[in-house]
Amino acid sequence: MSRPAAAVLLTGSELLDGRTRDRNGYYLGASLSRRGFRVTHVVLCPDDPEVLRRDLAFLLDGRPALLVVSGGLGTTHDDLTAAMVADTTSHPLAADPEALRMVTETTRRVAQRRGLALDELLPQMARQARLPRGGRAIAPAGVAPGFVLHHGTTAIVALPGVPWELEAMWPEVLAALAVEAGVAPPCILTVRLYGWGEVQVAALLDSAATDRLRLAITAASGEVTVVAGYDAGDREAAAQADALAAALRAAGPVFATDDRRIEEIVADILRAGGATVAVAESCTGGLLGARLTELPGSSDYFLGGALVYADAVKRDLLGVPAALLQAHGAVSEPVAGAMAEGARTRLAATYGLSVTGVAGPGGATPGKPVGLVFIGCAGPGKTVVRRYEFPGDRPTVRAWSVVAALHLLRRTAAA
Amino acid sequence: MSRPAAAVLLTGSELLDGRTRDRNGYYLGASLSRRGFRVTHVVLCPDDPEVLRRDLAFLLDGRPALLVVSGGLGTTHDDLTAAMVADTTSHPLAADPEALRMVTETTRRVAQRRGLALDELLPQMARQARLPRGGRAIAPAGVAPGFVLHHGTTAIVALPGVPWELEAMWPEVLAALAVEAGVAPPCILTVRLYGWGEVQVAALLDSAATDRLRLAITAASGEVTVVAGYDAGDREAAAQADALAAALRAAGPVFATDDRRIEEIVADILRAGGATVAVAESCTGGLLGARLTELPGSSDYFLGGALVYADAVKRDLLGVPAALLQAHGAVSEPVAGAMAEGARTRLAATYGLSVTGVAGPGGATPGKPVGLVFIGCAGPGKTVVRRYEFPGDRPTVRAWSVVAALHLLRRTAAA
Repeated sequence: MSRPAAAVLLTGSELLDGRTRDRNGYYLGASLSRRGFRVTHVVLCPDDPEVLRRDLAFLLDGRPALLVVSGGLGTTHDDLTAAMVADTTSHPLAADPEALRMVTETTRRVAQRRGLALDELLPQMARQARLPRGGRAIAPAGVAPGFVLHHGTTAIVALPGVPWELEAMWPEVLAALAVEAGVAPPCILTVRLYGWGEVQVAALLDSAATDRLRLAITAASGEVTVVAGYDAGDREAAAQADALAAALRAAGPVFATDDRRIEEIVADILRAGGATVAVAESCTGGLLGARLTELPGSSDYFLGGALVYADAVKRDLLGVPAALLQAHGAVSEPVAGAMAEGARTRLAATYGLSVTGVAGPGGATPGKPVGLVFIGCAGPGKTVVRRYEFPGDRPTVRAWSVVAALHLLRRTAAA
Repeated sequence: MSRPAAAVLLTGSELLDGRTRDRNGYYLGASLSRRGFRVTHVVLCPDDPEVLRRDLAFLLDGRPALLVVSGGLGTTHDDLTAAMVADTTSHPLAADPEALRMVTETTRRVAQRRGLALDELLPQMARQARLPRGGRAIAPAGVAPGFVLHHGTTAIVALPGVPWELEAMWPEVLAALAVEAGVAPPCILTVRLYGWGEVQVAALLDSAATDRLRLAITAASGEVTVVAGYDAGDREAAAQADALAAALRAAGPVFATDDRRIEEIVADILRAGGATVAVAESCTGGLLGARLTELPGSSDYFLGGALVYADAVKRDLLGVPAALLQAHGAVSEPVAGAMAEGARTRLAATYGLSVTGVAGPGGATPGKPVGLVFIGCAGPGKTVVRRYEFPGDRPTVRAWSVVAALHLLRRTAAA
């Protein structure tokens, strides 16, 4: 309740018409929330001066402690951010010497890489050095500098829209604002379950005392997350949070009480046991391996695997017997088991993890509907195969399959 | 300019604090833009009645032809959408018989699946049947029904936040609104380039006549897209668009003039030639296979592949000679070539496509910085290997690598 408010404005017409899927809102929201901000808005806005001006005014009108604007700092005609911030806050644009120094330096690098003359590029690039008066330049990670401008009680931060540039510049912004000072992060209880639906969790929450807690339930790919926030020092709330956690643990399949993603949990378990994993993927086509290798340092435990879309490849790469494929079909319990064992043996891994299923929309046969997925985990002692029927479309079935495989590996490796 | 405006409001605290990455805004923005709407806002808003009320008022104040609200239609205490729409538009909530029939039916299914009693679930679920008066229920794809409510000149559409449910219900919404009637889709010129930076494209655009066009340039993973919109019947604009397309084709590496994603373009080329592909992935860990299998029916041309994270696996699964690994290291031109050839031979594919690189943040060695990636394509006649140095962090390097591999396959297979 005492948390400072933050708003995020993401500019770029490409974010609203299906060309680009935003990533910055997600990143900034997570970072600000972890620091104790209450993120009240993430607004995506086209490169349209009128809409941008109206949105800036609306968001500033809410008097957030922080307004982060991403995008629109480049060199093209639709890069409007600095001008519109200048306009809305009545801090007119002016060439900033520090920003110009930064832009000249990066332009020199671009010119070199592209084999172009510096003089040719600089006039266009120099547009990026015009900041609202009073603004302070933030060194660019790529080409465009950002800036910080204090307006009333709001710190306005403008950053480039390219995700890796924004993410590289963000820590300096946080340090520069010293936003941590004065912001008491709220207490947060997190309880995560796999194997229960949202409705079951909601029923349990209804029967618990939670009036002092800010509760949120979310479900994604079969995982249900309960987050209860409360202010530091509220002892009654802390007692409610403890009781809620105990009730969930007693009744439900709780797998975590922290924010680590399932691939991080699996990584920690494998590392702790000095174990390795190899995958055998059919309908997920590489998504499981991609997820396991998202984390830096994943070569500690991930050896590799086989993508076995075609039946012949299931035989040749993993040694799945042709007779098994013939008798049961590729989407079957025995084939999932043989795939997991093949991956484990051929890659000499502690665990072999397999996925075979009907991701849809085609491929369903009598008794094998879209969403039917078998997941196998072959370990030192034995092989476990589980059968799932996932709801939803092709990407959903694939995403649920990956999460189910990671949870099966978690349970097997933690046992 | 004459296009009707549409706004999108996505509710759910989990979308703003880093728990869930939104997908609905991207989906709805793309669908609405294709139908000729000008999407002026995508707003993410927490489950906070005050913020939600203020956002609804702000968006309705802009008088869009269409306002789509997603999320907040479930059974928990933070499902506020119907109540807040009722409040903002002065259409009080009331139980809707048609919605109640839908909810009872879906509750019966949920009760059956979870082994629960219908009577126990129904009171909680029946909350979902309360709609703003005058609203018309939309049949649920999952559990919660949506609704359409006309308010002034704005059609308000509320849909569940679960992406597959929203996407399954969306076509009916479009049909119900008959939004196509009266909306003349704008003319759109799309030109996409791979191999040029945004700054080179911007320079060319600056030298062209484009005053009658609504121009947008976007860059993602090395692809630069130029979109020029103009009103149907504007012959001067059409001539400018034609001239611009010709200029870009003459000067730049244009690979497409439509919206097909690169994996679709590759799929079309492979299908047309009756060709198949197998992958050999190191630093991408499965992302390339996952991308190639995103499309339904990809088994027509995708056979499978090998994820070869560990050097031993590069040898065992793909036959990369140990001496080659020893002499050049895993991230090298010869190893990329051997991986591609290994995948092609062992999976009996027309093309073998390989990726090996330093995705970072660790793993850099003298002469092999983070971002260095070799991509190989082995075809019937020969093997091509290209060297890249990609900017950015681990996910960025991996994403650029996948796109570079798909473009190398495109060029090789189309030759």
